[in-house]
Amino acid sequence: MRAYRVVGWQEPPRLVDVDVPRPGPGQVLVRVAGCGLCHSDLTMTGIPAGIGEALGWRAPFTLGHETAGHVAETGADVTAVKPGDPVALVSPSSCGTCRYCARGLDSSCPDGLAGRGYGRDGGLAGYVLVDGVRGLVPLRTLDPATAGPLTDAGATAYHAVRRALPRVHPDGTAVVIGAGGLGAFAVQFLRALSGARVVAVDTNPARLDLARELGADDAITGVDAATAARIADLTGGLGADAVLDFAGVDATIAAGVAMLRPAGVFGLVGASGGSLRAPWFGGLPRDGEVFTFQGSSVADLQEVVALAERGVVRNEVEVFPLDRVEDAYARLARGDLRGRAVVQP
Amino acid sequence: MRAYRVVGWQEPPRLVDVDVPRPGPGQVLVRVAGCGLCHSDLTMTGIPAGIGEALGWRAPFTLGHETAGHVAETGADVTAVKPGDPVALVSPSSCGTCRYCARGLDSSCPDGLAGRGYGRDGGLAGYVLVDGVRGLVPLRTLDPATAGPLTDAGATAYHAVRRALPRVHPDGTAVVIGAGGLGAFAVQFLRALSGARVVAVDTNPARLDLARELGADDAITGVDAATAARIADLTGGLGADAVLDFAGVDATIAAGVAMLRPAGVFGLVGASGGSLRAPWFGGLPRDGEVFTFQGSSVADLQEVVALAERGVVRNEVEVFPLDRVEDAYARLARGDLRGRAVVQP
Amino acid sequence: MRAYRVVGWQEPPRLVDVDVPRPGPGQVLVRVAGCGLCHSDLTMTGIPAGIGEALGWRAPFTLGHETAGHVAETGADVTAVKPGDPVALVSPSSCGTCRYCARGLDSSCPDGLAGRGYGRDGGLAGYVLVDGVRGLVPLRTLDPATAGPLTDAGATAYHAVRRALPRVHPDGTAVVIGAGGLGAFAVQFLRALSGARVVAVDTNPARLDLARELGADDAITGVDAATAARIADLTGGLGADAVLDFAGVDATIAAGVAMLRPAGVFGLVGASGGSLRAPWFGGLPRDGEVFTFQGSSVADLQEVVALAERGVVRNEVEVFPLDRVEDAYARLARGDLRGRAVVQP
Amino acid sequence: MRAYRVVGWQEPPRLVDVDVPRPGPGQVLVRVAGCGLCHSDLTMTGIPAGIGEALGWRAPFTLGHETAGHVAETGADVTAVKPGDPVALVSPSSCGTCRYCARGLDSSCPDGLAGRGYGRDGGLAGYVLVDGVRGLVPLRTLDPATAGPLTDAGATAYHAVRRALPRVHPDGTAVVIGAGGLGAFAVQFLRALSGARVVAVDTNPARLDLARELGADDAITGVDAATAARIADLTGGLGADAVLDFAGVDATIAAGVAMLRPAGVFGLVGASGGSLRAPWFGGLPRDGEVFTFQGSSVADLQEVVALAERGVVRNEVEVFPLDRVEDAYARLARGDLRGRAVVQP
Repeated sequence: MRAYRVVGWQEPPRLVDVDVPRPGPGQVLVRVAGCGLCHSDLTMTGIPAGIGEALGWRAPFTLGHETAGHVAETGADVTAVKPGDPVALVSPSSCGTCRYCARGLDSSCPDGLAGRGYGRDGGLAGYVLVDGVRGLVPLRTLDPATAGPLTDAGATAYHAVRRALPRVHPDGTAVVIGAGGLGAFAVQFLRALSGARVVAVDTNPARLDLARELGADDAITGVDAATAARIADLTGGLGADAVLDFAGVDATIAAGVAMLRPAGVFGLVGASGGSLRAPWFGGLPRDGEVFTFQGSSVADLQEVVALAERGVVRNEVEVFPLDRVEDAYARLARGDLRGRAVVQP
Repeated sequence: MRAYRVVGWQEPPRLVDVDVPRPGPGQVLVRVAGCGLCHSDLTMTGIPAGIGEALGWRAPFTLGHETAGHVAETGADVTAVKPGDPVALVSPSSCGTCRYCARGLDSSCPDGLAGRGYGRDGGLAGYVLVDGVRGLVPLRTLDPATAGPLTDAGATAYHAVRRALPRVHPDGTAVVIGAGGLGAFAVQFLRALSGARVVAVDTNPARLDLARELGADDAITGVDAATAARIADLTGGLGADAVLDFAGVDATIAAGVAMLRPAGVFGLVGASGGSLRAPWFGGLPRDGEVFTFQGSSVADLQEVVALAERGVVRNEVEVFPLDRVEDAYARLARGDLRGRAVVQP
Repeated sequence: MRAYRVVGWQEPPRLVDVDVPRPGPGQVLVRVAGCGLCHSDLTMTGIPAGIGEALGWRAPFTLGHETAGHVAETGADVTAVKPGDPVALVSPSSCGTCRYCARGLDSSCPDGLAGRGYGRDGGLAGYVLVDGVRGLVPLRTLDPATAGPLTDAGATAYHAVRRALPRVHPDGTAVVIGAGGLGAFAVQFLRALSGARVVAVDTNPARLDLARELGADDAITGVDAATAARIADLTGGLGADAVLDFAGVDATIAAGVAMLRPAGVFGLVGASGGSLRAPWFGGLPRDGEVFTFQGSSVADLQEVVALAERGVVRNEVEVFPLDRVEDAYARLARGDLRGRAVVQP
Repeated sequence: MRAYRVVGWQEPPRLVDVDVPRPGPGQVLVRVAGCGLCHSDLTMTGIPAGIGEALGWRAPFTLGHETAGHVAETGADVTAVKPGDPVALVSPSSCGTCRYCARGLDSSCPDGLAGRGYGRDGGLAGYVLVDGVRGLVPLRTLDPATAGPLTDAGATAYHAVRRALPRVHPDGTAVVIGAGGLGAFAVQFLRALSGARVVAVDTNPARLDLARELGADDAITGVDAATAARIADLTGGLGADAVLDFAGVDATIAAGVAMLRPAGVFGLVGASGGSLRAPWFGGLPRDGEVFTFQGSSVADLQEVVALAERGVVRNEVEVFPLDRVEDAYARLARGDLRGRAVVQP
């Protein structure tokens, strides 16, 4: 089969021929219907050998961690799925047995550092191998050819929204900074689950248009010192219940914590390396909460798939064949995709 | 009566004679039995007029926000207490009617900026006036002559522990950085409520001795780059479930977040102006929680008083008469008190 | 002014003339714009003196506990509202200072047994007196002439939904038994806040039509031994995440607990005296939750008003003038109202 | 090896010779050091074939579901444990992949109906086979010869206490009805984790003595109509925050719900078939919570083991050799054991 692979540390990935793997006991072979592309793929190819190996990654490996498809073959002892079943693949890796997994906190599992598409063979290929049915979520009505982005862009945004929800009240306001791929999902989850007013903030007016279309009540262009004042105006001086920051630079963090009411929550999702320069005491939201994370849990994806199947959230995609995967990454890098790119082998 | 008062902005406080106030409708006059001294008193006397007035403070005012005593006289419409009743006074101010108070989040009430002892007449006097029974917690067995520190040092530490508890498991570890007044209470609340191993961290060996005496399982001297490694050793490499930082400088924040396990919680209580210099993504505990706050809620004090009355927590104090209040503040400023100073009029 | 009053224990209520009250310190006089009628009003008039007095009720009193209007006059010390302000009146009574009120659990306050419209003068009159601004929720865009039912039918249904939400997942199902006044609100709150599929169950097809119109995904006619099997079919054998029972007879309780999945929640709102005849061990949902309650909290009404002002929930009413109040009650008793009856003085 | 087995439906169990099993891929063979006896064992032997088969049980099988021992041999792919490691075996069975297991709610897993000692080979034998390391909790300092009862009596009591804790405040009271095996553990967990006053209620004075020794603040003999009044006296009229009922007959349920304060919690653990005869509306605790369950989660046992290793809870046992297993069951049936019986092969 053809596969788009990291062939060596700090080498450009390449479309190459590899053997189709065979499922061992407990494993499931999935025929890929579509695999979404993620910004993080772009940086993976530049990781030095030392860091990759410290994370437990093994080169070469096939890229792609937003995968859906059909069960092609099952190993011994697998009874929960059968060939032909449409499935989405849980994007983060987890062991299923550690103290985090035992508590449903599998997005904190130490095994999450390496997984399909980041140090192991992922979904940009004809087939992908899955260790155990715990990593599969059955699809009922969704088309696996386009469902891939739900597994990472969707599930990560959902994880952030779930963390924030206990502090978001229906008489309050939730702000999404960065209304792109993940942020557009966050707008939809907040609209579907919080009852609160949802405000999208972005520098890109096209994204704000999409955010409004997806349910944002208000949209604000740009993030600067004036943004918190705008939120104060919109909320009668109270401030926001929640801010989810999908950018994660110094400016969005500073503006984000400044626009919160007491007891509000700031969730950092964007991995751009920002922090708060001001003293925490007095600077962080009074008796509020700050969190950051990576990935999502198995339960997150189960719930995201359910919401998408019921039509509550929309998954905007642009489709490319596997032999045009490099064009798709180029468009992603330039930022001129409206939805998420999905590559179909 | 004699009262120790801020007589003007940025002037030294003085012991002066003032009239005993009279309770209006709904108010309660309390004869002070003892009032604890707090580090924050030392900075209040230096506040410029502009800041004080922006907070809604009115000078002159009597210092002291850790007060207990006996009801002396009740205003019209007060039926819940009667003269002679021993009571502790809720230290933070709150309105009882805003969206925070309606949800039991009264420590976030906007009215909390000014209160008895910080912009209004407090407890370093023969008598103090209380607006409404909401600010009074009845004492059954505790002596009001020494109970004062429970209302602020105790209740603030309790608030921090309550915030952390959902993430502290009995097979885990909770770390208290700064084992002084508030920290010594935190050690006791964690021991009484979490089931977890409790570790005290301080630069002062005498405080660590006291922390051990009050129930800390381990004590570590000093906070530096090696402290997180010590915690990793103590926890089999897992890291701490919770870190409560009663110092709040850059070094304690950096060490504190570094010693947490994924999904752990960092609570900043110390108002020393520190922050985290590192990027938040990757720097904050993965899928954990960071919080900071000021004050405590009415319910916090109700529960702290109950724990103290049942002997579950100990309130270590050193007693001074009102005419020696300046000596007591001098000892507090020098850091050579073992427990909390309580001044008795 | 005219007022519809309980004039004596177990006597029929009457429309009589009474003086307009005057607000004392801290009180607010509200000119009633509209007051909703509740089934519970019908039984109040039959309460024996002994029970009424044991509840702390004082006869005579004006009926009506679903009131909205405009501030007419404020007593001394009232600054949060001013004459002309449109307001909704919190329906349950609470003290604001007890251990429940201090924790935001004011619907459990012991003072809740007697209040405006049940033992004190309520809203079926030209004016009503309110003790303190804690009992008022400002209206921005809603018309107080019709907002009354939000304060009780709306807020009670909301309280039930809030209790159930932590156990309702977006890949799950919530069932509302009894889709009348409160149940129709519950359908809307579940649709707005849970992401789950919502199923309405009722014996009255007209109510099921309304429930579908308000957002129910499915509707089932009647409750009997087969209903749980229907829910099992609809949920692929899993059962429901939540059942809210607004009827509360033996049959709905038995069917309701039988249709729950493990870890599901059953909330009893209907006060019809039912119970579960089967053994609790094995009969109640495995590791689930059962709750019942009366009333709602101040925060509940704040959030219900916000949802209604944003158009997320609809408040279906039928309007009557005060001199036709007895016709309105007759229609209510016969069950031939589509929405809630609102009487306007 | 010798094993104490259910040899046929509704036949008396017998001590027989069977082969030592061998671990397949992913499995672990454990050499049993000690296995606790449970009341439920006594009823298993009387289960009709139809019910047993409906639960998915296979006869014959070895009894015993409170097992600890040492790893004897590991199957392929097992790296987390090695021969010689002391371990406790998670008593309930769960799949690790379903929607419950994915959320840490594994005590609700459908696979929990059949497991080691109830339909599969359990711990009353020289060796027992474990499917996967998820079912093993490592012991550091505890002796596996006596640790067995922690896995069921301990973990089940702990599960009940964890469910109740959010509603138990340090100024409140928790009541344990039935202070025997599980109840004695519950007293200890409440004392270690709640800060509340703990009251034990039992008909057996010897058990109440033990409960006091283990930390109960008060003990009440017998459960009848007067018990709720006693609790009201002890709590200044407020009522209990929580009641955990390890008996579960009509009388304990009626007394238990009657002694609760509003917003309190009633947990039914005893499987004696009781229920509440009174109407639920007005009869269940106002805005409180009622729950029942069977079993415990993997995380529960991890935490119970940690508490026992730190000496926070005590596990009282009486030891028997395997060839005296029938004497041990006879003593258990007569109720004349002080602690839990542990059988050592």
